[in-house]
Amino acid sequence: MKLTTVKEALKIILNNTEDFGVEEIDFLECEGRVLKEDIIADRDFPPFNRVSMDGIAINAATFNSGERDFKIEGVQAAGSPQITLKDTFNCVEAMTGAVLPLNTNVVIQYELLTIKNGVATVNLESVKDFQNIHKKGLDRTAGDVLIEKNKVITAAEIGVLATVGKSKVKVGKQPKVIIVSTGNELVEITETPAEHQIRRSNVYTLVSLLKKLNINAETAHILDNKEVLKAKIENYLSNFDVLIFSGAVSKGKFDFIPEVLNFLGVEKLFHKVNQRPGKPFWFGKKGVKTVFAFPGNPVSTFVSCLKYFTPWYKKSMGLNLNNRETAILTEDFYFKPSLTYFLQVKTNIENGKTYATPVSGKGSGDLANLVDADAFLELPNDKTNFTKGEVFPLINYR
Amino acid sequence: MKLTTVKEALKIILNNTEDFGVEEIDFLECEGRVLKEDIIADRDFPPFNRVSMDGIAINAATFNSGERDFKIEGVQAAGSPQITLKDTFNCVEAMTGAVLPLNTNVVIQYELLTIKNGVATVNLESVKDFQNIHKKGLDRTAGDVLIEKNKVITAAEIGVLATVGKSKVKVGKQPKVIIVSTGNELVEITETPAEHQIRRSNVYTLVSLLKKLNINAETAHILDNKEVLKAKIENYLSNFDVLIFSGAVSKGKFDFIPEVLNFLGVEKLFHKVNQRPGKPFWFGKKGVKTVFAFPGNPVSTFVSCLKYFTPWYKKSMGLNLNNRETAILTEDFYFKPSLTYFLQVKTNIENGKTYATPVSGKGSGDLANLVDADAFLELPNDKTNFTKGEVFPLINYR
Repeated sequence: MKLTTVKEALKIILNNTEDFGVEEIDFLECEGRVLKEDIIADRDFPPFNRVSMDGIAINAATFNSGERDFKIEGVQAAGSPQITLKDTFNCVEAMTGAVLPLNTNVVIQYELLTIKNGVATVNLESVKDFQNIHKKGLDRTAGDVLIEKNKVITAAEIGVLATVGKSKVKVGKQPKVIIVSTGNELVEITETPAEHQIRRSNVYTLVSLLKKLNINAETAHILDNKEVLKAKIENYLSNFDVLIFSGAVSKGKFDFIPEVLNFLGVEKLFHKVNQRPGKPFWFGKKGVKTVFAFPGNPVSTFVSCLKYFTPWYKKSMGLNLNNRETAILTEDFYFKPSLTYFLQVKTNIENGKTYATPVSGKGSGDLANLVDADAFLELPNDKTNFTKGEVFPLINYR
Repeated sequence: MKLTTVKEALKIILNNTEDFGVEEIDFLECEGRVLKEDIIADRDFPPFNRVSMDGIAINAATFNSGERDFKIEGVQAAGSPQITLKDTFNCVEAMTGAVLPLNTNVVIQYELLTIKNGVATVNLESVKDFQNIHKKGLDRTAGDVLIEKNKVITAAEIGVLATVGKSKVKVGKQPKVIIVSTGNELVEITETPAEHQIRRSNVYTLVSLLKKLNINAETAHILDNKEVLKAKIENYLSNFDVLIFSGAVSKGKFDFIPEVLNFLGVEKLFHKVNQRPGKPFWFGKKGVKTVFAFPGNPVSTFVSCLKYFTPWYKKSMGLNLNNRETAILTEDFYFKPSLTYFLQVKTNIENGKTYATPVSGKGSGDLANLVDADAFLELPNDKTNFTKGEVFPLINYR
């Protein structure tokens, strides 16, 4: 049987994204979420001719007429309404962030002044109009788009949202996701496993990966029983947008997931991908519902979530998928099978270049190895010798 | 007055880190936190000779004696106690994740079998001992350190914590931080500012930057009144580990922060740094309390938090500060003043290299420009011409 290639699999997945709509949330809750409205300047920025140094505000014409001594008429504090320089031969002390006083057009910082008996003497040969003044509307004009929609909101955007008074913000609604483990060998993490059992870990790894995308996934565990699987999965298909499975997708006698999904009307879009780890990966759709059924081994699940679910999610949210990371292999590597290989690597940055050094693992099930590595290097299936200095796509998880 | 250089400022800050102790939290809450105990393998991994392909388990000696037809004696499912192959001329169907049945030492996957009338015929010339078996203890041995302390916990570590049953985990306690804005010109974001006012944004930007470090900071605003400042800051010094100010640290008539901090016994370790933006930055200590007083302009506050608070926090938590990012400048850039310049840039990755392209801003106060950029390139103060292709430290905020 010809396996689906990694490229084909990703293409199919990206052709099956969904739009989960828009919701309005508090601006302080929206980090990491995707903006779904253009953010517009409600006024000019700065909104007034803004003093940008502490010092005195004067009239340039007076200075240019040769005057260097300016009697201090008053103080223009930040946060006070604009005052007026009454006599243009005088000056007003003006503070950073204040409105420029009327009848003034130059600010001279304290460092260049001598102040004595209420008179400021300017130690300067010449001045420029609007020196030390951040002019009204210089940065942005009222009505300008400050943030375009479909951008991930970070601290920078939070600051802008606050500035324009957007206390409620329209963001993309997150998909409702349930992560389901199967397998009779799994026990809860608070239990002590018997000799033939292991603790359940994949769901928690997936929960954590999704949390990084600001998705709070629910979790469930189902034993290897076809009728129970049918009933529960039917229920999940009604109540969630996305079902992520871990395990029971291969050739085992109890690998019921593909059969049960088929029975429930989930259309298989592919099963088995030409990759290591994660070959038995199954992907399907039922209407707007999306099902990722990853193989049960921990590293397979981990890398498959990063390689497939993450871009599916990003595209669903309207983000573009450009500027993917790449890294430079630091040593020769040999991998014979004609499969895309997700090589565990440790990265380091030198002189603007990202290097990836293989972390020798003990096989695709070695979860502890993920701790020593921090990324996967995606080695294509059409070659077997990967040479020091070659560049490959990088999937960074730290 | 000779200004403190950026390098000196950072050195002073890193010589004044604090240890906030350790707390034990639920393993699912510990993403992004710093591990404060070694995580030990509670058993071997795998804990038993683990079948790694679905197929049949046989005895290699039988195969090597020429036998290719194996009567199926039973099924070894994952999650079931180990069964025994009674007749070594027979086989047991064995599933991925199951314990290897007793008296078997080879697993042959279904793909290489023909099964008819309860007999599996192996279509294979030779087998290797422990083929398709993930041997007990191959990955890790009971007692091995799986994760060393002082590591940031990510999804990979969550998986390992689950595997070894660490439902409660010792992590570094977070500092208690309060972020304080000052300035009479600031109004709340839900208010409509008067002509001479602007909305309060820096505290929210800082809250968001600290949230990325998993710190839930409190916030406060104080008007430019010396007595109120004294009373409130004295209270904050009692109740918080870290005080971060934004504004009132320069030469203005109402820039009371340095004076008030001095009055309250906070020792100034430096005031004014040879950088743009952010020159009036003030840093001090009172015993174990740490005070970062950043200038009030939005970009100054933003970059100063990333450049100074973040590494201070990381070192305080026991993290190492190696592997700092760098990037390659894509065009010539000229900056005359003998100041370290934090240039706003947009980054992109090509062939494993990170490139930084200047985003022309409208001055240090242009918050909206942060939205178009995604990092700062740190240009040193000892030159004025920065040439395309040169590499500089990068401070990425996305």
